[in-house]
Amino acid sequence: MGESLPLLDKLGPTSGKGVTSVARVPNAWYVGCLSTELRNKPIARKVLGWPVVLFRDGQGVARCLVDRCPHRNVPLSLGRVLDGELECAYHGWRFDGEGQCTRVPALSPNSRMGPGVTAWSVIEQQGLIWVYADAGSVPPKPPHFFPLVETDEYHTVHDIVQAQGSLHAVAENALDVPHTAFLHGGLFRQDKERHPIEVVVTRTSSQVQAQYIGEDSPKGLVGRILAPQGGEVEHYDRFLLPGILQVEYRLGEKSHLLISGCLTPIDDFETRLFAVVTFKLPIPAWLVKPVVRPLAHFIFRQDARILQAQSRTIKTFGGEQYAHTEIDALGPHIKRLLRSAERGSTATHEQQFEKRFQMYV
Amino acid sequence: MGESLPLLDKLGPTSGKGVTSVARVPNAWYVGCLSTELRNKPIARKVLGWPVVLFRDGQGVARCLVDRCPHRNVPLSLGRVLDGELECAYHGWRFDGEGQCTRVPALSPNSRMGPGVTAWSVIEQQGLIWVYADAGSVPPKPPHFFPLVETDEYHTVHDIVQAQGSLHAVAENALDVPHTAFLHGGLFRQDKERHPIEVVVTRTSSQVQAQYIGEDSPKGLVGRILAPQGGEVEHYDRFLLPGILQVEYRLGEKSHLLISGCLTPIDDFETRLFAVVTFKLPIPAWLVKPVVRPLAHFIFRQDARILQAQSRTIKTFGGEQYAHTEIDALGPHIKRLLRSAERGSTATHEQQFEKRFQMYV
Amino acid sequence: MGESLPLLDKLGPTSGKGVTSVARVPNAWYVGCLSTELRNKPIARKVLGWPVVLFRDGQGVARCLVDRCPHRNVPLSLGRVLDGELECAYHGWRFDGEGQCTRVPALSPNSRMGPGVTAWSVIEQQGLIWVYADAGSVPPKPPHFFPLVETDEYHTVHDIVQAQGSLHAVAENALDVPHTAFLHGGLFRQDKERHPIEVVVTRTSSQVQAQYIGEDSPKGLVGRILAPQGGEVEHYDRFLLPGILQVEYRLGEKSHLLISGCLTPIDDFETRLFAVVTFKLPIPAWLVKPVVRPLAHFIFRQDARILQAQSRTIKTFGGEQYAHTEIDALGPHIKRLLRSAERGSTATHEQQFEKRFQMYV
Repeated sequence: MGESLPLLDKLGPTSGKGVTSVARVPNAWYVGCLSTELRNKPIARKVLGWPVVLFRDGQGVARCLVDRCPHRNVPLSLGRVLDGELECAYHGWRFDGEGQCTRVPALSPNSRMGPGVTAWSVIEQQGLIWVYADAGSVPPKPPHFFPLVETDEYHTVHDIVQAQGSLHAVAENALDVPHTAFLHGGLFRQDKERHPIEVVVTRTSSQVQAQYIGEDSPKGLVGRILAPQGGEVEHYDRFLLPGILQVEYRLGEKSHLLISGCLTPIDDFETRLFAVVTFKLPIPAWLVKPVVRPLAHFIFRQDARILQAQSRTIKTFGGEQYAHTEIDALGPHIKRLLRSAERGSTATHEQQFEKRFQMYV
Repeated sequence: MGESLPLLDKLGPTSGKGVTSVARVPNAWYVGCLSTELRNKPIARKVLGWPVVLFRDGQGVARCLVDRCPHRNVPLSLGRVLDGELECAYHGWRFDGEGQCTRVPALSPNSRMGPGVTAWSVIEQQGLIWVYADAGSVPPKPPHFFPLVETDEYHTVHDIVQAQGSLHAVAENALDVPHTAFLHGGLFRQDKERHPIEVVVTRTSSQVQAQYIGEDSPKGLVGRILAPQGGEVEHYDRFLLPGILQVEYRLGEKSHLLISGCLTPIDDFETRLFAVVTFKLPIPAWLVKPVVRPLAHFIFRQDARILQAQSRTIKTFGGEQYAHTEIDALGPHIKRLLRSAERGSTATHEQQFEKRFQMYV
Repeated sequence: MGESLPLLDKLGPTSGKGVTSVARVPNAWYVGCLSTELRNKPIARKVLGWPVVLFRDGQGVARCLVDRCPHRNVPLSLGRVLDGELECAYHGWRFDGEGQCTRVPALSPNSRMGPGVTAWSVIEQQGLIWVYADAGSVPPKPPHFFPLVETDEYHTVHDIVQAQGSLHAVAENALDVPHTAFLHGGLFRQDKERHPIEVVVTRTSSQVQAQYIGEDSPKGLVGRILAPQGGEVEHYDRFLLPGILQVEYRLGEKSHLLISGCLTPIDDFETRLFAVVTFKLPIPAWLVKPVVRPLAHFIFRQDARILQAQSRTIKTFGGEQYAHTEIDALGPHIKRLLRSAERGSTATHEQQFEKRFQMYV
């Protein structure tokens, strides 16, 4: 009968050689949830593959523990908050905000108490609850602070979306200009009457920015909302380690839009995006605000579908194989920054990088 | 671009170091099904990960074969029972209760007959069909015999439940006292007005028992059914290798409850529990009987939910990491017995172990 | 507590030793889709585990590319066909029928164009679109040509079915006689009043045939349609590398039925069967034609259920363990041919093999 092949061998394509742009940047702040989400019940989240549980202690301070009872490894998030402490649903062990075990019911007072559970650092600011992943080190600096949010004249809308793509893939997608004429055709840009603009890419050791010079006011629905009067637009896209996105548009003094995003890597191929949309516009905020979230969801659904297909293809081929052209303005730089941060590199002496090229939009 | 990580690496927590309390005890009797379940159709079951098929031969004797036709590897359980033999649904090969192939349709009478299939030993007793896993050895002794079932004055109810937990996790859960005040709060015990009782744990080479001394009659609904007159209760919890559980309550001469369970490991993290509830009580059996099964299912649903979450967490963390306190009366001993049996150890000379401690219930 | 076992070890049976009759024959023509399925939208298919996309170029010629955009690894099949070229849904990259990249939108005309994507050879003939898997070599000969389809008096019906079985398992199933009396009992044959017929098996280096001599006109519904007058039937079953099946029945001059099947291995354990049923019969074609497809689907549903159970059992046992008897006329030979083709062997000098034996039908 001849020889037989072992089961479950890789069938089909293998050209990707098992590499991906997944990066796991530890020792970094990621958004766990919105302030408004965390009330009197514990919330289960996953960050960098770690199950964690968020709750508020007796002073209302947000806390984050690894979501596993040290006794019998049941998720603490199945339990309840009692007097500002987290009680396990299985045997009632209790833990304070530092992860210390404060009570093992039925245990004799003379016996040795149960061990604690690892706590992650938490900071609540500007309506977001940030957790520091993971617990091995002390945060050297606070989380990202969103500009403009506290400024008069500016209005802010929060939003949460999620996609089955790596942090890198979601970041590149969110900051990529050329795909908008196709995936979101008609909404921002169209694939006709293209003319050249200049792109200036600047990378430091912790961020990369693309400046678009000579861009017309965006066409279509978004354009009409953003800048009814038309004119040339100032446009910047930025990525800041470990996962902050900024898309900034300005038209003269009257129109200013800053879409900030904070990416939380749930797992290698699942990423959550907390968006903070801040704007001042020549039209009333009460006209704009109700449109922001439905519009963002409509756009993001198109992105999420592509990101999911991309992840699936990468897995099928056993890795990714990306070809870059000049106009992939930020993706390769984001990958470089993530890789560097993943290795814990702090090359602050790294020289600033700048590149200029034309893009037809 | 820097180096890329291989796909599908373990992301997130790894503190469990890949160990679990899963134990695979071979050469042991496990319950396949209830007698009443096995009629004129074959039944497919899984025991220790092995697919087996149960059927009754021409004399009505229960039989158990590995559930794979040796011809083309189709499950024999898809076929039918004909003249006390099992006929494969694909090509009609037939097998007797010993697993011998008795017919290959269309085959010339002069040709060599097909090979047989492995048979497991079966014993039907007290309404349960036991199978001996696996087939490599002859059972040295019969399966567990349930006491009291055949005794006058005693009544018996059978039940089957299933949970996504290892045999060890299900056994520990079923015999654990402290969790009842939380997971089943109000039903047996409550987390208030606790007072100390004495616990005596005794372990031999094949079983471990916890005796609870000084316990009040259980409070709540169960207590009111078991012992309307109140008083001090005699209470024993026992684990017998490879997977027999006993919870015994006695109140004077009138009330006696023995809940026996036999655990069948379906797979590493799935366990079936066949329960035999035997009792005599001062209230009429016709009042008690209808309550037993609904109550047991209500309680077990709470346990099954926790056991499933526990298994999931163990898998996410790549292994388990249990912390024990003094009042984990039986779990560590059950693990020790299972490990020993898994290695085939028959340390009958092992000295009896005894330990006493206080528990606040 | 003793040692613990690693997680996710293989539990249960391992007697199969990890071998299966899965064969991956490369450098071969497989059917991608029916001609009628491919219109103005791209179609995604999987062949030998490779995702491919089919579309028609500007001349209407069927084309096949590996279904992954070289830019960001999104499936090209999510895009659209524009002027006979395939446009990626993400950034609008365009590819012609040869896989050449013809456009990267927004890219400056002076910049380097994107790379292309691998194209597979395609031939459209007799209503089927064949693709050559995979792309490493030039097809030395055209795909299988179906006899009789273009002949007067003959009528043809196309059909597609799919099963969760390996190409080998589906081929053996489709060409196996003994299972029909069981799995399709009453439709072709019955398990009673059996009498011997002679079987002649002939194998060359590229095909194997079983001739059935002395067979009565099939009984039951199919028999009544095929040969209302009864009589002895000429019956041949054939397998041609890499996955062509033929079941041929002839009754004198008036009745002639040739069921051809082309198997496409989607994955190791999933196979698609494109059937070409060609016949002339003493009853009018308009009476026969409407029956063919529903009848074929009815029969194949029974086969597909068994094939799926077979695959599942093989996976559970970590491999297959088949026992053959004399009347497994073709299965072992098909495996031998597939293994040989998988190794790229072209043993044209191999001597013809012939064997005769009795079968009781």
